[in-house]
Formats: sequence, C-alpha cells, structure tokens
Amino acid sequence: MKKILIDCDPGIDDALALALAHGSPELDVVGVTTVGGNVELEHTTDNALRLHDYYGMDAPVSRGAGRPLVREPRTAGDVHGNTGLGGVVLPEPKSELSGRHAVDFIIDTLAGAPGEISLVAVGPLTNIALALRKEPRIAEWAGQFVIMGGSYTRGNTNPAAEFNILADPEGAAVAFNAPWRTVMIGLDLTYQARANAAVRARFAGLGRLESQLITPCLDFYGSHISYQDEGPAIHDACAVAYVIDPGLFETVPARVDVETQGRFTSGMTVTDFRAPADVHNADVATTLDSEGFWSLVTDAYRNVAAGLPD
Amino acid sequence: MKKILIDCDPGIDDALALALAHGSPELDVVGVTTVGGNVELEHTTDNALRLHDYYGMDAPVSRGAGRPLVREPRTAGDVHGNTGLGGVVLPEPKSELSGRHAVDFIIDTLAGAPGEISLVAVGPLTNIALALRKEPRIAEWAGQFVIMGGSYTRGNTNPAAEFNILADPEGAAVAFNAPWRTVMIGLDLTYQARANAAVRARFAGLGRLESQLITPCLDFYGSHISYQDEGPAIHDACAVAYVIDPGLFETVPARVDVETQGRFTSGMTVTDFRAPADVHNADVATTLDSEGFWSLVTDAYRNVAAGLPD
Amino acid sequence: MKKILIDCDPGIDDALALALAHGSPELDVVGVTTVGGNVELEHTTDNALRLHDYYGMDAPVSRGAGRPLVREPRTAGDVHGNTGLGGVVLPEPKSELSGRHAVDFIIDTLAGAPGEISLVAVGPLTNIALALRKEPRIAEWAGQFVIMGGSYTRGNTNPAAEFNILADPEGAAVAFNAPWRTVMIGLDLTYQARANAAVRARFAGLGRLESQLITPCLDFYGSHISYQDEGPAIHDACAVAYVIDPGLFETVPARVDVETQGRFTSGMTVTDFRAPADVHNADVATTLDSEGFWSLVTDAYRNVAAGLPD
Amino acid sequence: MKKILIDCDPGIDDALALALAHGSPELDVVGVTTVGGNVELEHTTDNALRLHDYYGMDAPVSRGAGRPLVREPRTAGDVHGNTGLGGVVLPEPKSELSGRHAVDFIIDTLAGAPGEISLVAVGPLTNIALALRKEPRIAEWAGQFVIMGGSYTRGNTNPAAEFNILADPEGAAVAFNAPWRTVMIGLDLTYQARANAAVRARFAGLGRLESQLITPCLDFYGSHISYQDEGPAIHDACAVAYVIDPGLFETVPARVDVETQGRFTSGMTVTDFRAPADVHNADVATTLDSEGFWSLVTDAYRNVAAGLPD
Repeated sequence: MKKILIDCDPGIDDALALALAHGSPELDVVGVTTVGGNVELEHTTDNALRLHDYYGMDAPVSRGAGRPLVREPRTAGDVHGNTGLGGVVLPEPKSELSGRHAVDFIIDTLAGAPGEISLVAVGPLTNIALALRKEPRIAEWAGQFVIMGGSYTRGNTNPAAEFNILADPEGAAVAFNAPWRTVMIGLDLTYQARANAAVRARFAGLGRLESQLITPCLDFYGSHISYQDEGPAIHDACAVAYVIDPGLFETVPARVDVETQGRFTSGMTVTDFRAPADVHNADVATTLDSEGFWSLVTDAYRNVAAGLPD
Repeated sequence: MKKILIDCDPGIDDALALALAHGSPELDVVGVTTVGGNVELEHTTDNALRLHDYYGMDAPVSRGAGRPLVREPRTAGDVHGNTGLGGVVLPEPKSELSGRHAVDFIIDTLAGAPGEISLVAVGPLTNIALALRKEPRIAEWAGQFVIMGGSYTRGNTNPAAEFNILADPEGAAVAFNAPWRTVMIGLDLTYQARANAAVRARFAGLGRLESQLITPCLDFYGSHISYQDEGPAIHDACAVAYVIDPGLFETVPARVDVETQGRFTSGMTVTDFRAPADVHNADVATTLDSEGFWSLVTDAYRNVAAGLPD
Repeated sequence: MKKILIDCDPGIDDALALALAHGSPELDVVGVTTVGGNVELEHTTDNALRLHDYYGMDAPVSRGAGRPLVREPRTAGDVHGNTGLGGVVLPEPKSELSGRHAVDFIIDTLAGAPGEISLVAVGPLTNIALALRKEPRIAEWAGQFVIMGGSYTRGNTNPAAEFNILADPEGAAVAFNAPWRTVMIGLDLTYQARANAAVRARFAGLGRLESQLITPCLDFYGSHISYQDEGPAIHDACAVAYVIDPGLFETVPARVDVETQGRFTSGMTVTDFRAPADVHNADVATTLDSEGFWSLVTDAYRNVAAGLPD
Repeated sequence: MKKILIDCDPGIDDALALALAHGSPELDVVGVTTVGGNVELEHTTDNALRLHDYYGMDAPVSRGAGRPLVREPRTAGDVHGNTGLGGVVLPEPKSELSGRHAVDFIIDTLAGAPGEISLVAVGPLTNIALALRKEPRIAEWAGQFVIMGGSYTRGNTNPAAEFNILADPEGAAVAFNAPWRTVMIGLDLTYQARANAAVRARFAGLGRLESQLITPCLDFYGSHISYQDEGPAIHDACAVAYVIDPGLFETVPARVDVETQGRFTSGMTVTDFRAPADVHNADVATTLDSEGFWSLVTDAYRNVAAGLPD
C-alpha cells in the first residue's frame, strides 16, 4: 500500500479525488488536510469531514489556512457551487477534526515516515508553503510531491493561469522552489480526463454513490461552461491516479517558474522544457492513458460504493 | 491591387515575406520600413535595401528605430545569422534609402491614402508605436493593421513570449492598445506554415532565386533548432499572405494584452477569447489553409524569379 | 547668451518658467515645445502660444505628444485648473504653431547647433523619449539636459512619485537611460523655491504682468493644498534658473532609475547616491540659494514686464 | 508591568533592544522568538540564547523561520559581523530553546492573554506573517503590534528600502495588511536615536556590560559606514522604548503599503499620510524625544549591569 496525504479544497473534483484515493486498493490515506480555495475554508473543511464520513474513511481531517500566503482570497463558487459540492448536501459529519492545524499535521506526519508518504496537493498551495517555511525538511521527508495545478499552455480562470495557482501564486512559487521535484498535473493533462457520456455510463451500477454524489456533482460541474460532449475534466482525481499508477502518465522534466509579478499573468506556471537539466524542478505530465485512468477510477468507486456506511 | 506598407527587420523570413509581397499580383508595395530586431538596425536596413534591389522592387525603403521603445535591444542572430540572412550575401545595393525616417514615412504614407493601405508589421513594433505616439490618427488611416507576432499558447524565445513581442513589449502594448483592430498572426498560426520537403520541392524551378536565396536561407533557418521533418515555419510571410487572401485564415476575435510587468512573462500576448466583445482589440489567426498558402507563395516566387534584374 | 529649448506643459509654473527664460538677459530661447501633462495637449499648446504672444517671445512653438509613451494619460487639473493657468485667460494668440512636430523640432534644432543648446524639460518626458528613439544622437547634441521632475525622498502626486515622472514613467526611464547626464531638479530642490509673502512683495511693481498673470496664478496654485505660509513651490522655474546660473544650486552625482514595474511606486526616481561613479547618470540638485534664485526671477520678470506688448 | 514578546534577529541593535527590555522596570518579557535576518537563523538563535543567559533573562527563547515568506534569504553580515554581534563572543548558553516553533509560541502566548501583550518585531516579519496565516486571530489578541522597519523617505540597504522590510517584502505586506494597526518605528525615527559620544559617555559606569558588550558592539556597528560624529542609530531599541513610553514618540496615522512588485523598490514602505482615515493601517513614528529615550536606555542598562549573572 502506498501512503498518501491529501491536501485539498473540496470542491467537486476534490470529492471525486478523495473517493478514488479511498477506494483504491493501492492507497492508504494517512490524512486529509484542508485549505481555502474553491470555496471558503469553512466550507472546504466541512465538506472534507462530511465526505470522510460519507465514504467511511478513517484518516484524520485537519483544517489549514483560510487565506493565501500573501494575497486576498479568491474562490470559484461559480464552478463548485456556494458550498463547494454543487447542490449536494451530505449528512452532518459525526467525526471531528483532528484538532491539529494542517501545517503541523503535514509536518509531523511526513516526519514520522520519511520517504514513505506521497504528499498530494489539489488546492491552492498555501498549506504546503506554510509547512515548508515552518519546517523546510518536509521537502526531504515527502516521498514525492504531486500537485493538480498549473498549465504549460493556457489557464482556465484566465488566459494565463489555472485556478489553484492563481489563487495563491506566492504559495505556489514557494512549493515549486523547494528542494523537491514537483510532479505537475496541470490542465494540459487533466483536460484528457473527461467524464463524457461513455465514462458516466460506467458509473451506472454504483448505487447511492452514483445517485447521491457522482451524478449530481458531474451535472453541476459540467453545466457551468460549454464542455459539450467532452464532459467535465476531473482534475484533482488525476493527481491521485498518478500516485496509484504513474505508468498511466507521460511526464517531461522541465523548469517551472510561477509568475508573481505580472499584470496579466500572475499565477502562470511558466514551463521551460528547454531549460538545462540542472535547473529542472518539475516533472510535467503531458499525456494520460485515459482508458486506464477511467478503469482505475471505476474500480475504486465500486469499492467505495460497496463499503459505504449507512 | 491592394496597397501594402511593410515594416520589417530582415531577417530570413522577412526576406521571404518581401518576395511574396513583391511577387503577388494582388499587392502594390508602397513602402518598406526597417526596425532593429532579428539583427541590428544597420543590418536589417542594409538587408532590406539589398533585397529591394535584388528582387527589383521600386518602393522606397526607410530606416526606422534601432532600439525598442523602452528596453535594451535584443536580437536573434542565432536564428538569422549575424547579418540577418543566414550566410547569404546579396550584391551591394544601388538604390538609396528614402532619406526619411520610417516613422514619418509611415505617417505620411497612411495620411496620403486614408483607409487604403494595409500596414503590415513583421518585426518588433517600435516604429508602429512611435508613429502612433507622434500621429495618433494613423490608427484611423490604416486600412488594416496586421502583425506577425505573439502567441496564444506558448512562445518561442522563451516559454511565454514570441520574439517580436519580447523584443519590444511596450511597443507592442502601444500597438495593441491603439484604436484599431490588430490582426495577430502569431506562432499558433505560423507553425502551420512549414517549409517541409514537399514545399521545398515546389521551389525547384525558381532558378537563381532558389539557389541564391531561398535554399540557403531555409537551410540556415531550419538548422538551428530541431524542426526535423516539419521544416521551418515561414512566420512573416503569413502576415503578407493574410493581406493577399484572408480567406486562407480563420481568425477569432479576442482581447489581447501584452504583459510588460512580469518577471518570467514580459512580452507575452495574453489572449482572452472569452472577453466581452466590447473590449476585443484583435482578430487572432488560428487556422491556416496551408495548401492554399504555399500555392500563393509559390506563384508569387515564380513571378519574382521571372523578373529578377541581372 | 545661452541657448535654451524648453519642452513644457503649461501649467502655472511652466508659465512662470517661460517668463524667467524670456526675461533673462542670459538666455536665448530657441524654441518652445509642448507636451500633454498638467492638462491635455490642446490646452498646454494653446497656453504656450498665448504666453508666447503675451510675453512677446519670438521663438517658434511646436506641438508634441498628447499621450505618454506607453500608459494612459493623466493630468493635474486640480493643481493647474482645467485649462492649465488657473483662472487666467490670456488673449487669443496671433502667432501660429511652427507646423512641425515637437519631436522633429527638438531633433533638428539640436542637430543644427551641437553642444550649444540646453534642453530643458519641465513636463512629462514623452517628447524627449520619442526624440531619443527617433534620433539617438540628440544625447550627444544637447549641450546639457535639465529636467524638473522626480524626487529623492517623497513624491507629490502620491507618496512615491512626482507628477511629471508619474505621468510617463517609461518616457522618463528612456530619458534617464540615454547616454547623457540628466540634471535632475526634483521636489527636494523645488520645495526650496517658495513664493511666500516676502517673495510676492517683490513682484508688486510688475504692473500688468503681476496683476494679470503672476498674482492670479500664484493665488490659484497656492490654494489647492495646504502650503500655509511657505507659499507654493515654483517648480519649473528652477530648471530654467539652473541654466542661467548653476552656481545657485548644489548638485550631487547619483544613479537614478525610474521605477516602471511597481504596484505603488511606478514613476518613482530611485536615487542612489552611493552608486559607483561609473553608473552615475544624473546630477541631482539638493540645495538652492533661494535668495539668489528669487533675485534672478525678479530681475527677469521686470524685464518681461517692461517689454510686454500691448 | 507591560508584557512584551520580542521577535528578533540578533544582531547588534537587537542585543541592545533586548537589554533595554530586560532592564526596564516597566516591562515583563514573556518570550523571545528568532528569525533569520541580519545573519542566518542559526546565528540569530544562538545569539538570542547567549544574550538571554548573559543578561539573566528567564523568558523562553523559541526558534522561528530561517527563510523569508517567499524570496531567497539575504543577510547583512557586513553591518552585524558574520555571527551577528560584531566581534563579541558571549559564553556558551546553558539554557535551551523552548522546543516550540516561534510561530506556535507567538500564537499560543497571545492566545493565552488576549489584549495584554505587546508584540514587538524588530527583524524581518516572516514569523509574524506565518503566525497570521496559521492563526489570523492573533491580530485581535495582540495588545499592540510594534515593528522596527521601513521608512517614509529613503531606505538604508538601498535607496528605497529598509533592511527588515527588504529582507521579506511579502512577509511585511502580510503584517501591514492584517486587521491590526501597526506601529511603524522606521528609519526616519531611528536615525534620531544616535549613540554619539555624549550618549556613550553615559554608559561609562556599566562595568562588564559596557566593556564586554556595549562598547565593542557600538564600535563595530559604527565602523562600517560613515556615521561620523552622529554615532550609529540603535534602531531596534526604539521599538522597545515605544512600548515602555509611547509619550517619547510622535506618531502620525497613515496608510502603509509594502511594495512587492517593483524592480528597484521592492521592500519599500510606501507611506501615505494623506490617505483617508478609513484605510489607515499604521501609526508611523516621526519624532523622538531622544533625551528621554537615552535616559530610558541608560536606566535600563544600569539595571541589567547590576543584575548580570556571573
């Protein structure tokens, strides 16, 4: 089993990523930490805890930073709904938060198992940056560091920037400049993971999981922009899938710098594939085996569905 | 006949663009102006005059600005050779420069035929910016304004910026912000205009033009980076071709802002296809009928070859 | 007689600077050029021409740039009144503009007398920048280059920037980076040239000049902010005075860089007195002999008053 | 007794500020936290602990952040010596660090006594920013927040920026933008606190404290730049003095924004005294009663000297 610690801001695709992680027989989720992003921290944290109980997860959930490292907060309520899960309302959680701050949870958990845990961040990188500044050695302790964020062509929130990076450019700059190698699962990759009609047909037998969560989430997620027949891209799940099976991905080493100074380009992940190897700081995902990806997802979701608590 | 005024920095693809303009039965070249860019102004101007005589052109050639609007100059001698035409050395020119500055030539020529002349800029936009600041009415007087420059995905000189815009970001910002609509023929388009083996086979019967100019230029141009079988992109000729036959191009209206403040992104043409129509300032070329394009080019080159002076 | 070419944006203190230049027995005004700044170009140009006729000047007046080099225009109508001379309305001018653009007038005039003419710019540096880009040799041809602009401590329009530089930061950057040595007469100096009650008492005997122009201008100029008893600073006249008698000024060599990238600091003249001598690009005025200055001014104004046309 | 928590980067003037705090009968030092700044974190922390033992302090010392919030570290070893106290080598400390991170110490200590503790930061504001992001409520819990840093005229490390702010502009921006009111004790104030000959004469009777610490520190501190007869400015002690007796200071309310985007001005504290009151975020110290200040310091140092452990 591969240990994974997920820093997230649920968020619809975060919810789908957590299901993938929980349902995968390859993964042992050692913790979930929350950050403000798609919606405000109070909602991402509440959603994380509700999803945790709904799926039947047992890893602790820890609340993190509610504001970006330097800038004012921005959210994407238009994409995820005001509370973050479209219109889906999950039951009140029975579990409680860990009582520890996400930053400390990340530091202590990685410290406790150096080299063993994949740190996967699928929201703004604020918690990661704070943890790196409080304890720089997490860059050594993390087994690997995988993010959903950025793009090497165009953004989504604006022409230059992807939401997670735009929401905290300085946090992202700290993360990319740390002495680890970031696996960047950006839009160029995640746009290959579309929940189209054929994909959604696979989810038909998932019972409550399908009817209560997956379908309403995908309907909401797919409605707000013109995805047409391609279906919405399930961004965050790709980062989890990378940990499960990196063989589904082609990656290219590169130098990635986060623009923090531009007037029109702040939050852009400027990706130089021609940079000399000694300044490479990222492995940038370029190609997804989408058939393999959706098989992975479907199998995991079947496990989740089978194990749903009452 | 469509009147065209060409502001350029020859440069290999500028040379090929001038040949297209001169050889096209659709175009009347009313002037050529030079700017520092691919190589220093002394070389771009000398090249323009030599090409002018070599091709047998009769429009006046006027020297323009040797430095970008605000920044320090940068050149691309690695791509175009130290003097700008690869290793090609054309005969000493017999013609002389117009004796007028490019900025004044542009202003006066456009003023003399309001609405009639296509202003085509295929180098850094310094002359255009200076002309706009000296005489803002050129934005009304130009029949249309077409540039080779920019990109809506990735750059060439660096990950964010195309050379012509990077060489003078502030000049480009002035041009894009002027009250005309810029036709942007950027890298996304010009990479569809590749002089591959099949294309080059078409040039076989062009005699001296082929052996003295086209082939050595393309060999040099194609050698410096790994274009492999696709052949080098003949960027600047695309902007001239747009004037000849816009039907070969698909364009999409957009808001284009030039980044002048970024640390990693200065010179990027940030292209927002989702901007509201009232802030659109550009028609951005997205798709080229490359078969049609090369037919246009080959026909024009045949005319040039047939009319070469001794 | 010292030849002086004055680039200005009248503007109250510009009007007072022109009077100083015209009335000084030391100076031969070879031209006046206008730029948009304190108010719009149409007003600064109209004011320059009216002042020219009112004072009885005979140098040509040439209209220049109406917009900053790169940015959107900004004016200071609150300080100078909507038309630029407070409430003063001078007679319709009988003279006409030179018919040449300020940029060309500057270039040709300096070219005609290399090393002889002091170029004095007391508005935004747009014309100067355009002239430098069109003809870089003016940096050699100017006998000296003196500006009113900038500050080495605090600004006036905002905490960081003085109006003339803030109005065109990129134009100013071009001017400071040219291969001449800028004499910077900034706010730290000009705040020492206060038209207080004692100074104004000296103007009592100047007849029409005093009653029609000086007093209403100073009243307006002094009213808009809390100058209290110190009286308003007659900024632009200091730059003209420097040409007449540099012995009235202490200057310190420095490196001056104009900030063009800041969020709160664009247009700041960052002045490094500790920079190594080989990067010095300016002589920065620090101390004024204000008694000597006002004597100079009063004497010149007496000459102007005596020679006023009907 | 007023409770004070001191975040510092000793540093010569930090050492002198700690002595003032420890020796003042008005103050109860509840903790000392360290940050990288004048020298590297390992040295500032070691110095803090040695000073703590040397002076006989009993508050816990906690190590904080070794790197600025976003940028690469910069130090000022030329001013403070390579290890931070000039050439002074204090005895090995017997005390140990608290074992808690400075960020947690700050948060927990303020949480434990809301409204009672003055938080005084005299180094780069990294710990403060990290604490604000981890627990935003410290902005309510701090009784007041006082910094040594910034300037409203000119910087010291460069023309625009003071060292502490320049060392972490983003950290400073976070601190100034937090919902408390920062008391800014900047260079304009601290340059009024000069340890000149007359001041130093007062320290003559301080025995070991004078001979082992104060004199060698001031000699080193005063040597590296041309302070001439004025003596070095004891910056950090001013911030502590403000807590002891704010009546020694005149302050003016203002809006302070930290420039993080400039090319020449990053780290500048742009101070707008004319901003409307509803955007004021700082009380900026402008005038020091230096006689009163040095009396305060001398009295405190006498107490420290009297209580020095063996």
